[in-house]
Amino acid sequence: MSYSKITKPMQAALVADMKEVLQADVYPPIDQLHGMMQYHMGWLNENQQPDNAPAGKQIRPLLTMLCCQAAGGDWTQAIPAASAIELTHNFSLIHDDIEDNSPTRRGRKTLWTTHGVPLAINAGDGMFAAARIALGRLEDRGVPAKTIVQAFRRFDDTCLKLTQGQDADMSFETRQDVNVDEYVAMITGKTSVLISLCAELGSIIAQKPAETSKDYHQFGLNLGLAFQVLDDILGIWGDEATIGKSATTDISTRKKTLPILFGLEHSPKLASIYFDTSIPETEFVPEVVELLDACGAEEYANKRAADYSNLALSHLESAEPQGDAGAALHELTHLLLGRKS
Amino acid sequence: MSYSKITKPMQAALVADMKEVLQADVYPPIDQLHGMMQYHMGWLNENQQPDNAPAGKQIRPLLTMLCCQAAGGDWTQAIPAASAIELTHNFSLIHDDIEDNSPTRRGRKTLWTTHGVPLAINAGDGMFAAARIALGRLEDRGVPAKTIVQAFRRFDDTCLKLTQGQDADMSFETRQDVNVDEYVAMITGKTSVLISLCAELGSIIAQKPAETSKDYHQFGLNLGLAFQVLDDILGIWGDEATIGKSATTDISTRKKTLPILFGLEHSPKLASIYFDTSIPETEFVPEVVELLDACGAEEYANKRAADYSNLALSHLESAEPQGDAGAALHELTHLLLGRKS
Repeated sequence: MSYSKITKPMQAALVADMKEVLQADVYPPIDQLHGMMQYHMGWLNENQQPDNAPAGKQIRPLLTMLCCQAAGGDWTQAIPAASAIELTHNFSLIHDDIEDNSPTRRGRKTLWTTHGVPLAINAGDGMFAAARIALGRLEDRGVPAKTIVQAFRRFDDTCLKLTQGQDADMSFETRQDVNVDEYVAMITGKTSVLISLCAELGSIIAQKPAETSKDYHQFGLNLGLAFQVLDDILGIWGDEATIGKSATTDISTRKKTLPILFGLEHSPKLASIYFDTSIPETEFVPEVVELLDACGAEEYANKRAADYSNLALSHLESAEPQGDAGAALHELTHLLLGRKS
Repeated sequence: MSYSKITKPMQAALVADMKEVLQADVYPPIDQLHGMMQYHMGWLNENQQPDNAPAGKQIRPLLTMLCCQAAGGDWTQAIPAASAIELTHNFSLIHDDIEDNSPTRRGRKTLWTTHGVPLAINAGDGMFAAARIALGRLEDRGVPAKTIVQAFRRFDDTCLKLTQGQDADMSFETRQDVNVDEYVAMITGKTSVLISLCAELGSIIAQKPAETSKDYHQFGLNLGLAFQVLDDILGIWGDEATIGKSATTDISTRKKTLPILFGLEHSPKLASIYFDTSIPETEFVPEVVELLDACGAEEYANKRAADYSNLALSHLESAEPQGDAGAALHELTHLLLGRKS
């Protein structure tokens, strides 16, 4: 059974569960907060009327349910964890949009645009609390208390690391001396820890031994890192038609991605011009690409992406995912890593 | 044993535990976030050097440990919950300061003043995650998993209600039609639910039957409501020397506290002038006080405060708190309610 076929009922169950969580506890005299959260999720429009706005591919929560099933569990028991993951992701989007001053997301006004920054900060906090409420509902699906405590603790550690990654990402914007190790620590927090949690929670809820859950964790962690580095490579050498934006935007906006940071460490010439904004873009972009090529930045980034990809695949193999869900997991992994399965 | 004597070792244990939580997981390449959180807590100064700034009375976490002990438990088992409460309170302060645009707190610059709004929002999120990490450490103190799950779920429900209260508080600022019921719902979320959680968690960790934990919950809830309404009364009719600010500030700043909202509902004259900012303050304040007195607003507020106080005390009695901790709990309650014990 293909990824898209097996995940269809999972996605429907996810959305139904999240709606239950975000529609509960609406206390009539003061229920604006729930309306804001439901607007952000795309279920209500700006006039608080029913809406059905695109919500993204929801790969993270689907990964949790797939891993639970592939690890021999019952994916429906993992629904609360999947909801918690997706609501956490959405909490971080609400706050990211404020922090990045982004007026729109997925073609709709962001919450701070419609309600102002103070109410939007608070709505993000509410979504963070709702994510935890979702996770607590593992108890209602018969998951043993010891397992739930383990899920909670892994979840909380991950959330703290997410904020560490976000802090680093924002701080790096104003620094010119970021090194490759700092960058990898940043993308680990910002991207990979949540993906590793998705996979690990599935295994934890399936009650697999710690060794196996660790494999799922490492699978997700390395999958996230590989995906980010591949994205960095596409941001410089990618085919514009494939990635849907100019392949040189990362350079013209002076982004500090992995190949660039490697280049800054290994090409004194690149380091001397990269933050000089007086150079015309038409000269700047090709010169940077040439310097990156000359110091082996693409090769280096490709090597790191391959290493992370191989680690992800080898941990997935060790975890021995089973059945249709296991096959779908392989399909998704190869898709994300841009490999033929 | 007096409140101050019995809580001394509790407060020391609380601070030590919170320091452990906020100093763990400092990942050297990207550790700015922990420095920000420790600055907010008063343990570091702006130059990231050791500091020992005032941290408030920490009544909430002390209440948790006292209730645990008074309910026949071991207060040291409740330390993680106490830390979680205090860190949650501090997370909300970090975000409140941004939302209220407050440049200082307890005589020190707020985090958004020192680091800017984006990093401060994120540091608040980190503190919220850290609060949960603290709570998960109940497991390390031998609290049974089923009890921990219950603590987590009560905790999460409370956090969502906190954000509902905060949303209502901010929204009320721009409304002239807030009614008494909405106001009570707002202060319930903004103040009382956290205090009720403090008391209830102590009882839950002491493994008391649900009935008793409900009494502790109701005790805290009504204590919080009584305290807030008494504060509202002092804000109009209080003795300036006692409350440390002009007793009429609530009126001149057009606050919507319980006596005012009652007055707006019962005195058409008050309703017609209250939001008229053209009236000189020297005329406005005495006229408002006169209108409030004429419609029985003080009597009404006193009656509600007395009702909440009596409910708090009767639920405390039903809970049958024991020993020195029970006596200290009574002492604290009478102190907060402005009654002689």
